[in-house]
Amino acid sequence: MSRLRMNISMSLDGYSAGPDPSLDDPLGKGGEQLHEWALGLAAWRQPHGLEGGEANESTQVMEAMQANVGATIMGRNMFGGQGRWEDQPWDGWWGEDPPFHHPVFVLTHHPREPLEMQGGTTFSFVTDGIESALGQAQDAAGDQDVAIGGGAQTGQQYLNAGLLDQLQIAVVPVILGGGTRLLANVDPGVKLELAGVVEAPGVTHLTYTTR
Amino acid sequence: MSRLRMNISMSLDGYSAGPDPSLDDPLGKGGEQLHEWALGLAAWRQPHGLEGGEANESTQVMEAMQANVGATIMGRNMFGGQGRWEDQPWDGWWGEDPPFHHPVFVLTHHPREPLEMQGGTTFSFVTDGIESALGQAQDAAGDQDVAIGGGAQTGQQYLNAGLLDQLQIAVVPVILGGGTRLLANVDPGVKLELAGVVEAPGVTHLTYTTR
Repeated sequence: MSRLRMNISMSLDGYSAGPDPSLDDPLGKGGEQLHEWALGLAAWRQPHGLEGGEANESTQVMEAMQANVGATIMGRNMFGGQGRWEDQPWDGWWGEDPPFHHPVFVLTHHPREPLEMQGGTTFSFVTDGIESALGQAQDAAGDQDVAIGGGAQTGQQYLNAGLLDQLQIAVVPVILGGGTRLLANVDPGVKLELAGVVEAPGVTHLTYTTR
Repeated sequence: MSRLRMNISMSLDGYSAGPDPSLDDPLGKGGEQLHEWALGLAAWRQPHGLEGGEANESTQVMEAMQANVGATIMGRNMFGGQGRWEDQPWDGWWGEDPPFHHPVFVLTHHPREPLEMQGGTTFSFVTDGIESALGQAQDAAGDQDVAIGGGAQTGQQYLNAGLLDQLQIAVVPVILGGGTRLLANVDPGVKLELAGVVEAPGVTHLTYTTR
């Protein structure tokens, strides 16, 4: 049974990106600290074509995060660029061989032809809403799960619509003091239940299911 | 060696109290959900003069929270009432025999004589700032620790001043959608390090030390 999952890092004060993000600094001021726990892992580096890295308690979390995912949904900000697509549009942050290796559905208000990259990643641009994107992603994923690749606002929309099955938050003990709040604008009626905790160097992984 | 500790509950979206708090509803809308994990524990009920209750993984946390505390500091909002003390002033939420049983120092802008209650609790009203309150509390506590009894703003002040030794957050998987943000206004320079995690029914206890 295909599930919709989101994995995202959050500062202790609730931000998934720091203040003042830009194309040069997409994570915002201090935001890179949210991802340090992942970038040093062999389990993250290997699928991103990088050598080395270590194994620790986060390894199992990273492996589970990457396993059994047949499609990804992401918001336009996560893909990058703003507004209408230009003649030579932005093709994402990830180079010619993005690390997804499966269909990716980008939520946007601006139509664009699908973009086929190397290594099995195709970006499709969905203009008719989150339910349509989920349906297309589920069709593409088959029995595998669908991952939400971010950002916060996309996660909030799926949470509020009752469509998210699992939310895994990597709580990083830093204070960003501003930025994008991961769980802003979430309906207090949304019910979450703790499904697991993993304590790892520099991060605590909290997994919630929605009831 | 006396330490300054704070234990407080927080919703997953970062609030330590819900929206629209009042004298009738001091925890704000939905805020009572943050304390359900505690109110059912025998380890909480017994020192509050209540019978029954259960034991679970939160019991050890509650016992450690209450042990070795020789004095408490709290903000004026936590004590209750607003502005100048009147002729028959507010004497706190806790009745004639408050559950502290040690000296309590209330941060306020308005001078007031100390208020001696039954059972060893004396409320002293400190008008010359957080460092003075801490000094007085440490003198009263001797070798025992000093607890910050809330609320969020008081914790923020001690965190920003580099005076807090331990912050223990009980993360409750509810969305309040508004209210008092526990870690608003905290300086991004504040360094926290995870010291322990306890997974319990309806709550995850995260303990941080400040470096």
